[in-house]
Amino acid sequence: MIKAGIIGSTGYAGAELVRLLVRHPEAEVVWYGSHSYIDQKYADIYRNMFQIVDASCMEDDMDALADSVDVIFTATPQGLCASLVSEEILSKVKIVDLSADFRLKDVAVYEKWYGITHKSPRFIAEAVYGLCEINREKVKGARLIANPGCYTTCSILTAYPLVKEGLIDPMTLIIDAKSGTSGAGRGAKVANLFCEVNENMKAYGVATHRHTPEIEEQLGYAWGQPITVSFTPHLVPMNRGILATEYASLKPGVTADMVRAAYDKYYEKEFFIRVDHQGRPVETRWVEGSNYVDISYVIDERTGRIIMMGAIDNLVKGAAGQAVQNMNLLFGLPETEGLDQVPMFP
Amino acid sequence: MIKAGIIGSTGYAGAELVRLLVRHPEAEVVWYGSHSYIDQKYADIYRNMFQIVDASCMEDDMDALADSVDVIFTATPQGLCASLVSEEILSKVKIVDLSADFRLKDVAVYEKWYGITHKSPRFIAEAVYGLCEINREKVKGARLIANPGCYTTCSILTAYPLVKEGLIDPMTLIIDAKSGTSGAGRGAKVANLFCEVNENMKAYGVATHRHTPEIEEQLGYAWGQPITVSFTPHLVPMNRGILATEYASLKPGVTADMVRAAYDKYYEKEFFIRVDHQGRPVETRWVEGSNYVDISYVIDERTGRIIMMGAIDNLVKGAAGQAVQNMNLLFGLPETEGLDQVPMFP
Amino acid sequence: MIKAGIIGSTGYAGAELVRLLVRHPEAEVVWYGSHSYIDQKYADIYRNMFQIVDASCMEDDMDALADSVDVIFTATPQGLCASLVSEEILSKVKIVDLSADFRLKDVAVYEKWYGITHKSPRFIAEAVYGLCEINREKVKGARLIANPGCYTTCSILTAYPLVKEGLIDPMTLIIDAKSGTSGAGRGAKVANLFCEVNENMKAYGVATHRHTPEIEEQLGYAWGQPITVSFTPHLVPMNRGILATEYASLKPGVTADMVRAAYDKYYEKEFFIRVDHQGRPVETRWVEGSNYVDISYVIDERTGRIIMMGAIDNLVKGAAGQAVQNMNLLFGLPETEGLDQVPMFP
Amino acid sequence: MIKAGIIGSTGYAGAELVRLLVRHPEAEVVWYGSHSYIDQKYADIYRNMFQIVDASCMEDDMDALADSVDVIFTATPQGLCASLVSEEILSKVKIVDLSADFRLKDVAVYEKWYGITHKSPRFIAEAVYGLCEINREKVKGARLIANPGCYTTCSILTAYPLVKEGLIDPMTLIIDAKSGTSGAGRGAKVANLFCEVNENMKAYGVATHRHTPEIEEQLGYAWGQPITVSFTPHLVPMNRGILATEYASLKPGVTADMVRAAYDKYYEKEFFIRVDHQGRPVETRWVEGSNYVDISYVIDERTGRIIMMGAIDNLVKGAAGQAVQNMNLLFGLPETEGLDQVPMFP
Repeated sequence: MIKAGIIGSTGYAGAELVRLLVRHPEAEVVWYGSHSYIDQKYADIYRNMFQIVDASCMEDDMDALADSVDVIFTATPQGLCASLVSEEILSKVKIVDLSADFRLKDVAVYEKWYGITHKSPRFIAEAVYGLCEINREKVKGARLIANPGCYTTCSILTAYPLVKEGLIDPMTLIIDAKSGTSGAGRGAKVANLFCEVNENMKAYGVATHRHTPEIEEQLGYAWGQPITVSFTPHLVPMNRGILATEYASLKPGVTADMVRAAYDKYYEKEFFIRVDHQGRPVETRWVEGSNYVDISYVIDERTGRIIMMGAIDNLVKGAAGQAVQNMNLLFGLPETEGLDQVPMFP
Repeated sequence: MIKAGIIGSTGYAGAELVRLLVRHPEAEVVWYGSHSYIDQKYADIYRNMFQIVDASCMEDDMDALADSVDVIFTATPQGLCASLVSEEILSKVKIVDLSADFRLKDVAVYEKWYGITHKSPRFIAEAVYGLCEINREKVKGARLIANPGCYTTCSILTAYPLVKEGLIDPMTLIIDAKSGTSGAGRGAKVANLFCEVNENMKAYGVATHRHTPEIEEQLGYAWGQPITVSFTPHLVPMNRGILATEYASLKPGVTADMVRAAYDKYYEKEFFIRVDHQGRPVETRWVEGSNYVDISYVIDERTGRIIMMGAIDNLVKGAAGQAVQNMNLLFGLPETEGLDQVPMFP
Repeated sequence: MIKAGIIGSTGYAGAELVRLLVRHPEAEVVWYGSHSYIDQKYADIYRNMFQIVDASCMEDDMDALADSVDVIFTATPQGLCASLVSEEILSKVKIVDLSADFRLKDVAVYEKWYGITHKSPRFIAEAVYGLCEINREKVKGARLIANPGCYTTCSILTAYPLVKEGLIDPMTLIIDAKSGTSGAGRGAKVANLFCEVNENMKAYGVATHRHTPEIEEQLGYAWGQPITVSFTPHLVPMNRGILATEYASLKPGVTADMVRAAYDKYYEKEFFIRVDHQGRPVETRWVEGSNYVDISYVIDERTGRIIMMGAIDNLVKGAAGQAVQNMNLLFGLPETEGLDQVPMFP
Repeated sequence: MIKAGIIGSTGYAGAELVRLLVRHPEAEVVWYGSHSYIDQKYADIYRNMFQIVDASCMEDDMDALADSVDVIFTATPQGLCASLVSEEILSKVKIVDLSADFRLKDVAVYEKWYGITHKSPRFIAEAVYGLCEINREKVKGARLIANPGCYTTCSILTAYPLVKEGLIDPMTLIIDAKSGTSGAGRGAKVANLFCEVNENMKAYGVATHRHTPEIEEQLGYAWGQPITVSFTPHLVPMNRGILATEYASLKPGVTADMVRAAYDKYYEKEFFIRVDHQGRPVETRWVEGSNYVDISYVIDERTGRIIMMGAIDNLVKGAAGQAVQNMNLLFGLPETEGLDQVPMFP
């Protein structure tokens, strides 16, 4: 059994890791780290875990963890993982960092968009961007995984084959993304109160959201040169789910068959990516609770654009599920181990 | 592998059976019955099943099913199962009926509350009321299981130990129940449209709801004589979950310890029933997606009443989960097989 | 024009007062009091007021207010109004207190249920309980109005005629109430985050909720002697609305006609109370945004009980609307002035 | 008093017309037309109208209506108004058509996108597109008003000043719109059931939605030549509200001041349009229940694009409110008469 420790186990992403790992056949959680609930029973905070998890929360102590576990998940705000990691720790344990600390290769870009100084720039080069379907082989040998952001996972995977194959002009790419509220975390903020979110829809972080450079970097690798995209996230009155609606101009001469072939080339054998070539719009409800990415697209002859749509569960493929998928790769397990949840509807 | 057929697989309860059975280690669905979607791919109706279920819907043909499967689940409106079942069928196959047809032992009561003539009264005596925690042993040897109603499962289990042990006066029992909207089914009715249900709360079926005699019959067995209860269901703007708030006068001299002991006597060893003796109100979110029943209670010295609270997922323990639990008992499997879903939150 | 000041104008009840008063033909808000947002533009906090309210927030200074306005609304937590009010202030200005400070005549009961020392017990006797339909005449001549609680307004009005006329046994009264989340206020608490409330239903304050003694006191006046009730509030995933489902045993010999006559006697001429004698369950959506109280009832011959149902908008009739109704009475205006909003659906 | 008749008064848009008109100081509804509920009391269908509207539903008989009323509102599906209108009717009565029948000047475009034959093409030229802020003077003298679509109202007004002033390249315009579910109407369809919409987000009508040509036609007038846009609507789990997020490339040399000046030029004096030049994203909650259009924008230097955001209540400014605004103009009333509802939050 793989011994897992979670730093930040009492946030929504941490709790989702717990949900997945307590039923994982090859892993067990031995350290429920928390900043706010030390010594409280985990099941008193997340009462769905009553009679399932008996442990109490422990400190977010990475040094102690490194001696106790095989893999550490950091489900914490940006900055924390970078401030704790060290060569000694990495020599003992694998780290899957769910924060943004090691996602961007250019430390200046990180510091500009996040507004903080990076505490461990020396590990950035080594860190592997854990978008499993794209970087599978690199993940297998890594010590430090930068687990992708929720919006970015959905945004990148939806457009990746067309960028990679050069079928769209990536400089025309506009990503209009919509997220359930769990993406905003469990912090007590007025803006996230039920009455503020319910019966409302809004954009936020317009032209400034931090997932923008992450999308640009990864799609830039696919394209072969830097790209700039418009990315606008929106808050939706639902708990889970991200929907990305992406617009781009098709290159001249690109046909529906070429688009289909591109998606098939990269995704036909992927267990977690389901492409619907009939153009039926994807819906977040069809992936809820699962690690699937649903993708469909419509070619609009009138405008010469393709509208690509992607849907994920932000807490699973957008966070904890992908983290477990990375763990499976790191430890040589089948990639789908413990991740075969059927999407729950309604 | 147990071969299972589902009559009514395209309703919400049927779809939940599919969700549970496709990951059940000892069962497989070989017949996706449907009245409305014959020959359509199941995954085109429930697109969460894309690349998971490849089958198309077939007729709701119980005779044909009886020759093809080991167990038939009927997830259909009242009347259908009773109109289809026969001695020949029961000689070939087990039936778990999710409708109300075989729940009430007194056919006159059935016909009065449901307003239809019972088509197979000869099987009523044989049918076992499949509330597993109460009737476990009877279920094991049965051919025909009457799977309990959603409200009734929650209402009965919440009060059962106190009625059985004579700690409350059952004639004072008032059950105020609240349900998510999936309990209303997938029929296209104005009253169940999003805009009609959202931002609204209402009672319905006041003093006339059909689950009333079912609760009265089962709690009457526990009490040893007939009882009459007030039962009021309410519709809540959420997808899943039933909450029952139950009020009853404690018998003179009953103490908190006696209440605790009664719950422990019947439920301490039950995997799916979680009793919180601290009196923290149960919440539907803590059982969502799982087969758990959460129960807590508060003794109110001022009024001499006890307020009992129970929560279930109406589609799992209130329908499909309990049906699978019954199937497990029928086929000698561990009762929890395929039913260890961790409640999903948020 | 009546000059109005609001202490606590940036909570949900305060904001609803603003919504109603800015369109009131005989009143204007001249003081937007706030503890947290002093000097900020009101319309920056509640952006629905953009280009409608130009004022900035001011301190919650009751002395200064008393010299500036004709009526002060205190939409603040319990304790504040009692700590600020004085004889001098009451000699200058009318006060409508939306908190609980002056609702209970017995200061010991207040201090027990609220757990705080009352700072101005000398004004308790003078304060008039502002349930307009019951205490209309007393309100007209008052200086200090104790605006009723949201749950209590709904709970009392639903049962009042039957208690007053002696048609039910009030000692059997059980009130199961359900409220939208705006009743929990705008404080930043984890328990009220969108993801915690959405897709969930729970009771809270079981046997201990502070509105209990308020209901008991007022219905005790109607009955003529003290009564004890069970009152259980529940949190519902919707913004607005309270639904009270109330159970009581009918006195022997009470007929449907007698029940109807009792409701008509007290409510037939009331503009804001709408009684449906057909027994159709009331729904919160039919009163949303308005000052109406909808009431219906079902007599259950089987159990000898009557099930009464009442619905209000907790922010209007349960708070700000009733406060304006009290203001209208205090200043000799038509009681419905500025309160003729049609319920908004969907 | 203006006598108003409503054809289709029992749909959501029709019911919103009733809500607005029953409190309109200069109008009264004298004919509640309905296809499905003839002879039923209106207040039995919309119980918010209990004790407010006493009338019963009548046939959707435009000839009879023309002799009884001053203005007819047709809140019906496309095709009906065109099939009923005649020269004789228009000689007697004003018509405000909330359907799409007279919005598009090119009948071929109408027939292509709507898939039906236009029954009254002879009135298309005469009909005035009732987007009041743009076509105010034309509306005043019209007999037949084509009340704009909900998405189109929001989409056009959000971009209009920049198109009109030539500050953006309209061929780059991409409109990603999100709507509450009331926009889907009150028809009993599985896709609009609570459990299908709740906890879900999806696009629909991708590249084929019928509001596309309406947007293109109107913005084409502003631009001076035909334009083509990408328009994608989405369904959001909320009752009311449309949010349009619009992307376009700024023309070279366009500054923030020029953008601001363009918005001010057209909207500074408009009562119902509120432009926030600070770039705070608009939110549907801030306009709910009101006739306001909220607009804000962000200039993204990185991409050279401007992101414009607009929010309306789809049932008010997107349907019934704008219809009343048109009625006010037609009858020489102040444009805001009966339309000063303050947005209701929460």
